[in-house]
Amino acid sequence: MAQSMLLYWSSGSPPCWRVMIALEEKLLQGYKHKHLSFDKNEHKCEEVKALNPRAQVPTFKHGDIVVNESFAACLYLESAFKSQGTRLIPDDPAEQALVYQRMLETNNLQQKMYDVAFYEWHVPEGERHESALKRNKESLIAELKLWDGYLEKMGKGSYLAGKNFTMADVVCFPVIAFFPRLHCPPEHCPRLMEYHEMLKDRPSVKASWPLEWLEKPEGEDTFKNL
Amino acid sequence: MAQSMLLYWSSGSPPCWRVMIALEEKLLQGYKHKHLSFDKNEHKCEEVKALNPRAQVPTFKHGDIVVNESFAACLYLESAFKSQGTRLIPDDPAEQALVYQRMLETNNLQQKMYDVAFYEWHVPEGERHESALKRNKESLIAELKLWDGYLEKMGKGSYLAGKNFTMADVVCFPVIAFFPRLHCPPEHCPRLMEYHEMLKDRPSVKASWPLEWLEKPEGEDTFKNL
Repeated sequence: MAQSMLLYWSSGSPPCWRVMIALEEKLLQGYKHKHLSFDKNEHKCEEVKALNPRAQVPTFKHGDIVVNESFAACLYLESAFKSQGTRLIPDDPAEQALVYQRMLETNNLQQKMYDVAFYEWHVPEGERHESALKRNKESLIAELKLWDGYLEKMGKGSYLAGKNFTMADVVCFPVIAFFPRLHCPPEHCPRLMEYHEMLKDRPSVKASWPLEWLEKPEGEDTFKNL
Repeated sequence: MAQSMLLYWSSGSPPCWRVMIALEEKLLQGYKHKHLSFDKNEHKCEEVKALNPRAQVPTFKHGDIVVNESFAACLYLESAFKSQGTRLIPDDPAEQALVYQRMLETNNLQQKMYDVAFYEWHVPEGERHESALKRNKESLIAELKLWDGYLEKMGKGSYLAGKNFTMADVVCFPVIAFFPRLHCPPEHCPRLMEYHEMLKDRPSVKASWPLEWLEKPEGEDTFKNL
């Protein structure tokens, strides 16, 4: 089945990484894939554009089915391979609601992480303001505290939506991993740091660890003064 | 069943509106609800904060289950009431993938709509730049053309993910409705305008139409010069 899948991806992209974790968890190892360099703008190639008018990664194809939004691809994989590998969305309504809630809340954490880590990348030089970056940082710290509180409340050893690894972890871990990587002070989010330690050696996470992070285990100090 | 549901909402908020459309489509009329005024900052009240640490609307409760992210609430409602009312997520894998894809792509359209329509609301005066607003407008026009192309390709009378009304329409219509409302020139997205005409009288849409829009049928001309 995995042989009829093709993933275009870039290393270090949280959206790509979450699809790769989902593929691993659903035991779909052996899928075809093509690594594209962001720095060389390879994701803007015609091959990707033919499948994805946004010319973004991930771009994902399973047979004739194309599903490129990372959350959509994850939901599709869980649905299409429900009984294979890890069950990522539980049947119990209360558990399921929490998985969906944390899954979709990830967009907040991801956007706020981008707004600080990639501020200079996204905002042209003449439009940058110290006041905006300061506000973005405050907003990110508040967001981290929120997630840290979720974990604190659920108790030691919890995953993001309870005692089991779920889709919430699949989509959110690749964002959380940026905080220790970019030297975020652990006091902003001690529980998230523990969570990261707990998950970093999980087989699906390890198998999909960003190539650049393997090559350069030490990240930049972007979040050092958060 | 609907009697054990409580929705905090504000009029004209696309995230609230989509939850209300989902509730209508799943035949959950009769749910309790509380309308909060954005202008009076009522969504920051203690009652909401007790259920939603983000102090945002929608805030949605079903019995003891709280699910506040609008996409999460919609997914939860479809799953919990799968066989009741309109089936919003089809079983067929290819159809389902397209529903998920368009559903999640809605975040792009929504963010780009906000980045133009609410630019002055979101960006403090000293940080505003004509160049940024111009770029946001160009980005929004490109986004509109993309969605218009999706509809064009699927043919007259199509919904966003094919011949049936699905979750893609539930989540995206409340964003699309802002374009005719705020006087977007129809030539930017003729198919979306037709789609809006087709859907605006659908019972679920009509029953949840923003109160302010009923009171003031004529919107501002925010998108007139898009």
